[in-house]
Amino acid sequence: MTDFYPSRISATPSIMERKDPGLYGSKDSGPLKHQELDFYEQNGYIFFEKLFSDDEVDVLRKKLDGTMDDHKSVDKPHVVREQGSDEIRSIFDVHKNTEFFQKLSAHEKLVNIAQQLLGSQVYINQSRINFKPGFKGKEFYWHSDFETWHVEDGMPRMRAVSCSIILTDNYEYNGPLMLIPGSQNYYVQCASGTPDSHFEQSLKKQEFGTPDHNSLKWLVGKSNGRIDRATGPAGSVLFFESNIMHGSSGNISPFPRSNVFFVFNSIENKLEQPFSELSPRPEFLANRENVKPIQPQAFDLSKKLVHLS
Amino acid sequence: MTDFYPSRISATPSIMERKDPGLYGSKDSGPLKHQELDFYEQNGYIFFEKLFSDDEVDVLRKKLDGTMDDHKSVDKPHVVREQGSDEIRSIFDVHKNTEFFQKLSAHEKLVNIAQQLLGSQVYINQSRINFKPGFKGKEFYWHSDFETWHVEDGMPRMRAVSCSIILTDNYEYNGPLMLIPGSQNYYVQCASGTPDSHFEQSLKKQEFGTPDHNSLKWLVGKSNGRIDRATGPAGSVLFFESNIMHGSSGNISPFPRSNVFFVFNSIENKLEQPFSELSPRPEFLANRENVKPIQPQAFDLSKKLVHLS
Repeated sequence: MTDFYPSRISATPSIMERKDPGLYGSKDSGPLKHQELDFYEQNGYIFFEKLFSDDEVDVLRKKLDGTMDDHKSVDKPHVVREQGSDEIRSIFDVHKNTEFFQKLSAHEKLVNIAQQLLGSQVYINQSRINFKPGFKGKEFYWHSDFETWHVEDGMPRMRAVSCSIILTDNYEYNGPLMLIPGSQNYYVQCASGTPDSHFEQSLKKQEFGTPDHNSLKWLVGKSNGRIDRATGPAGSVLFFESNIMHGSSGNISPFPRSNVFFVFNSIENKLEQPFSELSPRPEFLANRENVKPIQPQAFDLSKKLVHLS
Repeated sequence: MTDFYPSRISATPSIMERKDPGLYGSKDSGPLKHQELDFYEQNGYIFFEKLFSDDEVDVLRKKLDGTMDDHKSVDKPHVVREQGSDEIRSIFDVHKNTEFFQKLSAHEKLVNIAQQLLGSQVYINQSRINFKPGFKGKEFYWHSDFETWHVEDGMPRMRAVSCSIILTDNYEYNGPLMLIPGSQNYYVQCASGTPDSHFEQSLKKQEFGTPDHNSLKWLVGKSNGRIDRATGPAGSVLFFESNIMHGSSGNISPFPRSNVFFVFNSIENKLEQPFSELSPRPEFLANRENVKPIQPQAFDLSKKLVHLS
């Protein structure tokens, strides 16, 4: 299959233009208005303040904490811990392994937006819940998710969107996600060098597929120096395009951060073989098996709270 | 001499109230107005936007760059490099070693404010110029300067103020100084354990005299969750009280940060023997020799530019 986005093939990095639309749907194909779609297309992300109510956030947080607790002594690759500690940082594949997050991943509030942005039915390519502790939350260096998904997982085109449901207030000072607006329109071809199964390390610390300083400077120049931050109250939801350059600083504040994270991929953009010599990464990082389009479901989270208590 | 602020003497940390005024001067004793003095007393810091003009910043930046260049191959303790790299991070004692920064440290704009805040004549206890590179600027964990100056240098009372002249724009996303407002009114007695001459390491990474998580949570609770950031354009000047809890995140943005840093101490608060079993730190970190009150000088930086070019 043609590789439209080669990367890690040359010793010197370079930048090429995006070859896919930044937005696939139209205003008639989903809940988002013209203005919102415009914003997403221009900036590569869109942030919805309090898409979920405080009651719903309570339920989500309890489910996240409960799932973390259930995995305390699970020693499997999809349970990722802080470097040099036993604390769980992320649990992957929650849309398969837990009934609650499976239903959440089909929530019509989320899926209808993803379908509109991608102009097709969608499926979950990756899911996880994240807990970033206060005082010692590590930084996550700049990267394009798509670059990794393309080279290491075989995602052919830029037709996926990440969705982050934030479960703690995100402030300027507790390591919010930072995004370079407009950077989704350029593809940074990283310098070569991807050792096999480097993913086990890269989940903890980015080292390969890392964009170079000059390309990052160029992207920030293109955005007129803008670096946006996804700050806002718990219950807010960020959708960001697969190729947008993003990262986050460490978090020395006492305020931890947790979120639920789904990657929606277009059903027309299923994974192929990796665009590299690498073996495909494991299923919990890049879903290939039994891929079927999601049927959006109404799912009243706050009613659940009543059943739970 | 009585130790009013013991620290690192117990295995368990604790918090005590400040025993010194948070503000020594009055509105009649200097340039700051009633409101400004109130703000400083309550919050422990005050930020003056563009106290120096763009022309003055140009001169300051050139002098900083020139001084960094001059020290490229100087291998002395007062020239501090990034861990694992040759890049200079800080040069200390610039108020002694360079004519320009000596004059700057006596600049009436700065000294008159310091005198007013401290209610006396002042001298420079420490000076340095700092360069925090883009992309890889390291975080600086929470600390009270006074705790170190007291335990390791023998500063008897809380009667000093730091002055940071920022020479690059400080954004939310390039690792600005973060301060916990009001924290200057409490003294966190850190847990014991200070190996001798740990300063060589601590200049690169804080490890001792580190406040514990519970005390930090308590201080942030006292400030109603506020963590303020010193953001603003180049030429702005931050004065912050010796005991305020502060720190900064790493900087993965392309924007470097540089500043000139002076610690003004009251002439009535000269250093004694360290309040610990430690030997005094070197002169470049804590001035003891030939301490004389500064005579404030008018010093037109922008005129200098004309002479230089």
